Amino acid sequence: MAFDDAKGMAIALEEAKKSYEEGGIPIGGCLLHEDGRVLGRGHNKRVQDGSPILHGETDTLNNAGRLPGDIYKHCTMYTTLSPCNMCTGTCLLYGIPRVVMGENNTYVGGEDWLKHKGVEVVNVQSKECEELMQKFIREKPELWNEDIGV
Amino acid sequence: MAFDDAKGMAIALEEAKKSYEEGGIPIGGCLLHEDGRVLGRGHNKRVQDGSPILHGETDTLNNAGRLPGDIYKHCTMYTTLSPCNMCTGTCLLYGIPRVVMGENNTYVGGEDWLKHKGVEVVNVQSKECEELMQKFIREKPELWNEDIGV
Repeated sequence: MAFDDAKGMAIALEEAKKSYEEGGIPIGGCLLHEDGRVLGRGHNKRVQDGSPILHGETDTLNNAGRLPGDIYKHCTMYTTLSPCNMCTGTCLLYGIPRVVMGENNTYVGGEDWLKHKGVEVVNVQSKECEELMQKFIREKPELWNEDIGV
Repeated sequence: MAFDDAKGMAIALEEAKKSYEEGGIPIGGCLLHEDGRVLGRGHNKRVQDGSPILHGETDTLNNAGRLPGDIYKHCTMYTTLSPCNMCTGTCLLYGIPRVVMGENNTYVGGEDWLKHKGVEVVNVQSKECEELMQKFIREKPELWNEDIGV
């Protein structure tokens, strides 16, 4: 069954905008099953929860809760920004076979590693995702650096 | 300054035992600064918190809280078991330069990726860490498989 990429990315972007409105880092995620179910959605919560491990993708998986390993093999992870090494490794741990990102002009994470491990990686080159991140980085550069460990 | 590996690993093992006693997955971690401070300690909380992203290392970093990126560059991450891809990627995101594991006979995670990225990886080959994991896996094999996405 084909994934509804427009749906997955729309949810991820909604989450990113929600985080921005909360004063947080505007990166969102969505875990979509091939049968169309949204298994999880979430956003970066460094500011909101004081957490260095809740990025868009990890918060999404955390919100999806405990799942049997087989389920992840039928999912796509949507994220508004190229996944960092933490989120890359998390997708690999669970064997998520497909990752769709909003953009990678702002930041390039572990895309090469994903591809090396056989994950399908798609960049939808969303101007809206990119503009949101650029606005945020102009406003709070130190927060962005903290989030990527710089 | 040299790291006190015996101290770091003792704390990680304490955390692993604590998790076992709580009915959880017995993997623990500790983040030690080169000046001797314990910045964080933690353990797998899949069972305790229903979380698929709280492993020994990620829980340790979460408990350490938000830190400036520079601090991680002066730390060693201790973990009772070879770090999975998620925890490997998390160490890489924050530029932790040294990872010390209790053992890798039970499971081999992303050690190659760590070494490829220039991280110093040490295996202390702890029989106590290995026996604790082997006992747990005999008792709850399905829980272990869930934690590694199988």
